[in-house]
Amino acid sequence: MSNDRGATKQLTWQLDVEHIEDLARGAAVLGTGGGGDPYIGGLLAKQALRDNGPVTVLTVDEVPADAQVAMVAMMGAPTVMVEKVPSLAEVVAPLRAMEASLGRPVTHVVCAEVGGVNSTIPIAAAAALGLPLVDADGMGRAFPELQMVLPTLAGVEASPLAIGDDKGNTAVLSTVTNNWAERIARTACVEMGCSVMISLFPMRGDQVATAMVPNTLALCLEIGRAIANSRENKADPVVAATKVLGGRELFAGKVTDVERKTSTGFARGHARVTHEGDTLALDFQNEHLMARLNGEVLATTPDLILLLEHDSGEPITTEGLRYGQRVRVVAAPSDPRWHSPEALAMVGPRYFGYDVDSTRFDGTVEASR
Amino acid sequence: MSNDRGATKQLTWQLDVEHIEDLARGAAVLGTGGGGDPYIGGLLAKQALRDNGPVTVLTVDEVPADAQVAMVAMMGAPTVMVEKVPSLAEVVAPLRAMEASLGRPVTHVVCAEVGGVNSTIPIAAAAALGLPLVDADGMGRAFPELQMVLPTLAGVEASPLAIGDDKGNTAVLSTVTNNWAERIARTACVEMGCSVMISLFPMRGDQVATAMVPNTLALCLEIGRAIANSRENKADPVVAATKVLGGRELFAGKVTDVERKTSTGFARGHARVTHEGDTLALDFQNEHLMARLNGEVLATTPDLILLLEHDSGEPITTEGLRYGQRVRVVAAPSDPRWHSPEALAMVGPRYFGYDVDSTRFDGTVEASR
Repeated sequence: MSNDRGATKQLTWQLDVEHIEDLARGAAVLGTGGGGDPYIGGLLAKQALRDNGPVTVLTVDEVPADAQVAMVAMMGAPTVMVEKVPSLAEVVAPLRAMEASLGRPVTHVVCAEVGGVNSTIPIAAAAALGLPLVDADGMGRAFPELQMVLPTLAGVEASPLAIGDDKGNTAVLSTVTNNWAERIARTACVEMGCSVMISLFPMRGDQVATAMVPNTLALCLEIGRAIANSRENKADPVVAATKVLGGRELFAGKVTDVERKTSTGFARGHARVTHEGDTLALDFQNEHLMARLNGEVLATTPDLILLLEHDSGEPITTEGLRYGQRVRVVAAPSDPRWHSPEALAMVGPRYFGYDVDSTRFDGTVEASR
Repeated sequence: MSNDRGATKQLTWQLDVEHIEDLARGAAVLGTGGGGDPYIGGLLAKQALRDNGPVTVLTVDEVPADAQVAMVAMMGAPTVMVEKVPSLAEVVAPLRAMEASLGRPVTHVVCAEVGGVNSTIPIAAAAALGLPLVDADGMGRAFPELQMVLPTLAGVEASPLAIGDDKGNTAVLSTVTNNWAERIARTACVEMGCSVMISLFPMRGDQVATAMVPNTLALCLEIGRAIANSRENKADPVVAATKVLGGRELFAGKVTDVERKTSTGFARGHARVTHEGDTLALDFQNEHLMARLNGEVLATTPDLILLLEHDSGEPITTEGLRYGQRVRVVAAPSDPRWHSPEALAMVGPRYFGYDVDSTRFDGTVEASR
């Protein structure tokens, strides 16, 4: 696969162990600080692929209209996830519980979001189950709450939603709205240990084609490879990644302050990056939500705000942020559907409690509720 | 039905509207302050019986061994329950969700505990579903947590456990222990509004016969009638109720202090009853758990501690306790199975955080973990 974006439209391919490192790295970039640690996510996917062989990846156009697709994901605070790597049995249990509730088998697995763990957990699930994986996800990035996927805006129900923990407990929710699915699943997640496996948004194949963000696994691989190739060629990996993302570099400096707590199932906090008297402030809830330079808003959710290690271009998750790290902050466009008024009401800065309009990656301000 | 305890062994009978008032009053007596308000519980059962006709009540011996029995109950803080009377659709929804999970229909309904609401909700469910009701419950009293039933000690699993709220959300739990069922259901209950309907402990008929407390509906009716008859005959209703219970009156006085808060899904608090310089202190968590006279422990869980209005003998629930009420405090024996070491570890005073041994209704102290 070349760095040409046209490559993301290639047809059926076999995903195997050798893809995981680049894919997980690229997923952590698009994960905008959330979606889990790519090292942890990579370990589990590699083990599943070694044990079960490669996974067939299909584009959304290749999925039969009557297919039974389901999202598989890890839910919880990334700060807890890194200490609780799930077993393959745990990864598979919620999908089995969903199948029992649906009364029919799931035929295809798909990602809920992009992220170091949540792009690789579905690979592990597909490998363990012997099912094909659809190259798509519900966000084209990561967001902290489960209803925050484009299928919600397209009217797809999150339930039956199945949750499974490391003890062997499962819960199957049937909810009247996707916000209720989030509320009840989140509270169960916290009680079950702040890190659980979930299966959700059962969809037909034709719904996947219209409601999801296509080709994001291929894009992850492309970003991950661009960073790796730049390192090998003594080029600048951050420049390479920013080019693939179609974004812009906002700031470069040293992390001088990180404040983070795990509360109500999320890793919430803020960080400061400084350079020669200038300060870039970052606010996050699992994912980076807002970047302000000396008080001026440069970019907000739903566009992507992400941190890359200054020289290596390695993505830094919000739970991996440390005092003294030298970083570069990049903003990049989200899927255009996230900029509708309904979408901004769901994932814009005001939803997260910031009294500002949404600011796009290029600085354009758009009114949002 | 006479006051003779032998009467509780009568066979199949038809429970109808005219039984509800006495039954709900007696249930509130055995509910030891918890299990919900008998007026609220009575309303719902009467409506269901008027709409659907009487309910057939069977003794545990009459239930076929291969019957599929399930408990139906309301879960939450009684302080919230009194403001959220469920509809019949809500009462029935969790049982339907459990049936879907079991893959077979429930054939008989049974009570989880005794209480003003939790003895009458299953009557409403049985009427609405057209199913027979088994004359038994899991405690012979009320306790605040769902694993606190004799079937847990007999090895019966609480799950699949189904929860339904007033919005139409449902959750079906499959848990590795009954304590996990309590933990996850409680946290979901709180998120769903602190008052939900549940269906739990699916059992075969032969398990009901050995694991449950038999004839408690008949006993509720007997207690309720004893109180009503004493009022009519100008006798002392508290003396009559105490006699049926086989208990003893601990104290009579005026409620001079009530402290109560609704936290983590429970109504917790304490109250003081005083008379001529003596003070009886009551500690409760939905149910009364300990009675101390001038600091000396007179009785604790698992034996029954209950408050009756001084003259009318009307049971007073913990959420109905008010400053100035004239009350009499009665202690009575629980089912003897609650006094095994395993049972005391589950429902004895130390489980609830009181560093005292269990004291029986008659003042006998028994070591407990």
